[in-house]
Amino acid sequence: MADDAAPDAGAAVLTSDTDRLIDRASRGDLRALARLVSLIENESPELRPIMRALAPRTGSARVIGLTGAPGVGKSTTTGALVKAYRRQDRRVGVIAVDPSSPFTGGALLGDRIRMQDHATDPGVFIRSMASRGHLGGLAAATPQALRVLDLAGFDVVLIETVGVGQAELEIASLADTTVVLIAPGMGDAIQAAKAGILEVADIFAVNKADRPQAQQAVRDLRNMIALGQQDPERPGWKPPIVSTVATTGEGIVELTDKIDAHWSWLSSSGERERRRLNRAREEVAAIAVGALRRRMGRLPEGDGLDELARRVAAGEIDAYAAADQLVGTLVTQEHSGRAGRA
Amino acid sequence: MADDAAPDAGAAVLTSDTDRLIDRASRGDLRALARLVSLIENESPELRPIMRALAPRTGSARVIGLTGAPGVGKSTTTGALVKAYRRQDRRVGVIAVDPSSPFTGGALLGDRIRMQDHATDPGVFIRSMASRGHLGGLAAATPQALRVLDLAGFDVVLIETVGVGQAELEIASLADTTVVLIAPGMGDAIQAAKAGILEVADIFAVNKADRPQAQQAVRDLRNMIALGQQDPERPGWKPPIVSTVATTGEGIVELTDKIDAHWSWLSSSGERERRRLNRAREEVAAIAVGALRRRMGRLPEGDGLDELARRVAAGEIDAYAAADQLVGTLVTQEHSGRAGRA
Repeated sequence: MADDAAPDAGAAVLTSDTDRLIDRASRGDLRALARLVSLIENESPELRPIMRALAPRTGSARVIGLTGAPGVGKSTTTGALVKAYRRQDRRVGVIAVDPSSPFTGGALLGDRIRMQDHATDPGVFIRSMASRGHLGGLAAATPQALRVLDLAGFDVVLIETVGVGQAELEIASLADTTVVLIAPGMGDAIQAAKAGILEVADIFAVNKADRPQAQQAVRDLRNMIALGQQDPERPGWKPPIVSTVATTGEGIVELTDKIDAHWSWLSSSGERERRRLNRAREEVAAIAVGALRRRMGRLPEGDGLDELARRVAAGEIDAYAAADQLVGTLVTQEHSGRAGRA
Repeated sequence: MADDAAPDAGAAVLTSDTDRLIDRASRGDLRALARLVSLIENESPELRPIMRALAPRTGSARVIGLTGAPGVGKSTTTGALVKAYRRQDRRVGVIAVDPSSPFTGGALLGDRIRMQDHATDPGVFIRSMASRGHLGGLAAATPQALRVLDLAGFDVVLIETVGVGQAELEIASLADTTVVLIAPGMGDAIQAAKAGILEVADIFAVNKADRPQAQQAVRDLRNMIALGQQDPERPGWKPPIVSTVATTGEGIVELTDKIDAHWSWLSSSGERERRRLNRAREEVAAIAVGALRRRMGRLPEGDGLDELARRVAAGEIDAYAAADQLVGTLVTQEHSGRAGRA
């Protein structure tokens, strides 16, 4: 079974190379860190022994999710927060899983400008993660990457995700504190409500607050929060609204203050522990689902997905019956495999 | 095993009620159709016998995916296409899985205006699907909904998805023809490239073509297509670019012409069959994965996800080892269950 979550990793052990890599990363070496994140993204065979070695070093980094529709200023706000935290002498990691973020897509047109602000600062690590790929990929990879940043002693990790889409919302929900960005005009508050991101918000930032409709956006948001019921998942926490102009840095200190206040509340209410357990639960489930999905693709011809798909497309069976067969085959194969090995 | 994809459905048979529902839907009754789609969304126990009854009636509806970032005019274009197809006397279904679409979120602020254009037309069926929920939910539900629309004899089904996010891209890829919408300005073509939606496009529509930067957007797009390699999945098909102004209907007839041309190519190249097989494959896998994920949540305490998550959070084991245990437990439980029944 050990060969599933990372192919052929069953026999892999921690070589002195990966051992050195972990050691260097734990002392804050950014290149070693980048290499480890790549191993995670690529599901390298070395991934398993590395994660095994890292498991006891559970982290203390605070995870802050930033989400919102394209164009609200997520990347600029991320950049402003990085600066603010650096001024407080905190080490900051950034993981961008937003396909429209310059942190992510920078390679395409060389718009890595903001990244270069911090290119020589060893207290900042910026990394993009591919938001597509196999099932469970991102949901499985992001917590592993967080663990590596923890190892390297980062105080704060910012996860930037675009606030539309199922996978992205799931990732936002992995954070200790989720900041939802809204821009004035365009009915963004309303769109956010539709997209279900109001519910994931611990803090709202109305960015571009120098625009004429900013006050209206704040009012809309306040009304919408008032309309909504008290979230049973956040008893005692009412999401504050902060007005920011990320391009000038206005309101960013207030934003970090609110994030600190939320962190205090998380710790005192026991909610922090609950969120970390939830993150671990989703992580384990995502890896297991990914492993099972890969097995589906590896079944012998005749039993496999291709033949079932052909029969479904031909109208010979329905998709539920096909799925039952698939699950049954997986389980039986697995059992014979285990019996054979026993 | 039969109880997994839809809880307690193992014993469910086609009652005369659901039988009547299918019969009414097959004669184009929109209320019966809406009821069937609700049963799919809610994973009703009746779902399985219904899908079993529907399996032999494989469909001929053409599935057209519309995708693009929020604000490019997807809903307006969808509306314009509905009108155009109605003029050609084709029956049109619309499935909106875009959280920012007025078709989807309409209930919130009553902006169901565009829907009401067709409220009394029995040749139009518009339906939103929740874009969040349990794993595999949308990927499993959308093809079922397509099958029901097929049953009801719709000629064309438009699926509107927001072009950001993993799940949404997967859905776009289920279509026979995928139209990617771009709006001039805002570097949308570039953002689209980053988000990976260039690769899923069979046809590009540069909407809001009356804007000054429209010609530039078309040029950018052309360059980007030229830069990209010929897609090995689409030998012989070069995605055309259509300029549209969806609000006035300009270019919409040309768009339907290109969609027809792509359909002809799909049929003559054998690509249509390949896509339908692919859709069936993803559908079966999504249902199977959903069933396995639900089993994970139902394991007895001590074996289950909660306990594993606790151990991972405490640093006692790593997430991969936990996932292995989870998969192992699932398989063993399953085997005892089967042995017990045998």
